[in-house]
Amino acid sequence: MPIALETAANIPLFKGLDQETLITVAKLMSSRSFLSHDIVLRKGDEADHLCFLLAGQLQVVDVTEDGREIGIHFISPGAYFGELSVIDGAPRSASIVSVKPSEVAFLPTAQARALIFNRPLVAERFLTHFAQIVRASSRQRTLLSIPNAFQRVFAQLQQFVRDTNEGQVIEGLPKQHEIAIMVNTSRETVSRALHTLMKLNIVEKKGTIFIVNRPDQLKTAAVAGLDEMPATNANNGPKVEKAEKAA
Amino acid sequence: MPIALETAANIPLFKGLDQETLITVAKLMSSRSFLSHDIVLRKGDEADHLCFLLAGQLQVVDVTEDGREIGIHFISPGAYFGELSVIDGAPRSASIVSVKPSEVAFLPTAQARALIFNRPLVAERFLTHFAQIVRASSRQRTLLSIPNAFQRVFAQLQQFVRDTNEGQVIEGLPKQHEIAIMVNTSRETVSRALHTLMKLNIVEKKGTIFIVNRPDQLKTAAVAGLDEMPATNANNGPKVEKAEKAA
Repeated sequence: MPIALETAANIPLFKGLDQETLITVAKLMSSRSFLSHDIVLRKGDEADHLCFLLAGQLQVVDVTEDGREIGIHFISPGAYFGELSVIDGAPRSASIVSVKPSEVAFLPTAQARALIFNRPLVAERFLTHFAQIVRASSRQRTLLSIPNAFQRVFAQLQQFVRDTNEGQVIEGLPKQHEIAIMVNTSRETVSRALHTLMKLNIVEKKGTIFIVNRPDQLKTAAVAGLDEMPATNANNGPKVEKAEKAA
Repeated sequence: MPIALETAANIPLFKGLDQETLITVAKLMSSRSFLSHDIVLRKGDEADHLCFLLAGQLQVVDVTEDGREIGIHFISPGAYFGELSVIDGAPRSASIVSVKPSEVAFLPTAQARALIFNRPLVAERFLTHFAQIVRASSRQRTLLSIPNAFQRVFAQLQQFVRDTNEGQVIEGLPKQHEIAIMVNTSRETVSRALHTLMKLNIVEKKGTIFIVNRPDQLKTAAVAGLDEMPATNANNGPKVEKAEKAA
């Protein structure tokens, strides 16, 4: 189904474009609804559209060489996605699935490219967005290089912390199995890591949000681990390192 | 020292720009020489220039949360770097060190931004380059999620394989300690992995290049491992997984 001019005008990438361009763009776009767990884009497919999330939530998901599913990041309303293939013409680099019922708008690749390369405003936004992806992916890479799974969970939690009037909080924390695939561990490890933080009163659950009572200790936990971490897990990293060094 | 018009004209990002723009750009640029192991950019510094490697070789290096150095990728002559900060104004995301004696040219941020956002030709090249970084970083992320260190080395080697007239070869393989930091393991593990591949005649060393005699077996080694892998290392991944699952 086609999208309304107002909907197109509300897409952050298009903010500030003249009315005429907006009308043209809105006419070229179409939208589609997805249920939870639907596949919105499939890895390896050809890129025929630049996509925009109008409502709902999506997750970028990839599969490791040995077949395990890993979550890369979440997509929130207003964001666009599928831009890699639109830019370089190569197949989709990852699959995207809906985490909630979602509404997605599609702009054909040729028109998307014309808009991006010929409008300094759009080019700048697009490049800034890419820069953010590169930084996030670099942070995630650094995080994944932490050999200890517990510390990876702590480091990941740190990235969700936001400053609010009530201090540092984590709102809208992804589900445990989602965090597990982001940091390449099991759901059980995520559960135990969270439990340990709550037991030590470093974080505290209040309804759907987590209050971070001791931000400095959360940081220390990510960098150096916690004394209270179960022995088996606490020693994963060093054990692997030693085994490799002894090899 | 300022750079020659011819040098600027040979920078791939600037190919096809009109003579007048090239003259302006060349006048704004300066160049500097670096010895091996010099720090060219330092993580956390402010971004005052877009940088271009004129000659030599550089490596992007980051430091993990627990202080270990990890190599991200190499920069070859003709490439530009430091573009993230030029785009988003945030501090440098990683340090860059010279692997060989190198010559680097610098274009001030303001002029670099004007060029990127206002020239569709440059905007497209810049975005395509960003898309490649994102894809490479996503591949590396997938690679790092392989729990077994040997398999990570095999998967990394696969990425260096090129098709030539003499079949599949690996030319200019980074040093063992460089591969080690790329795949987050020890130099000893890289050495043993390479040795195992040569012993099984999957790869063969001829002077400075490696001939890949059995590309399919290299692939299998990356995905499923090799029977000949030393037991300690071959079981790292599963051991960790089990420990976590039992936790």
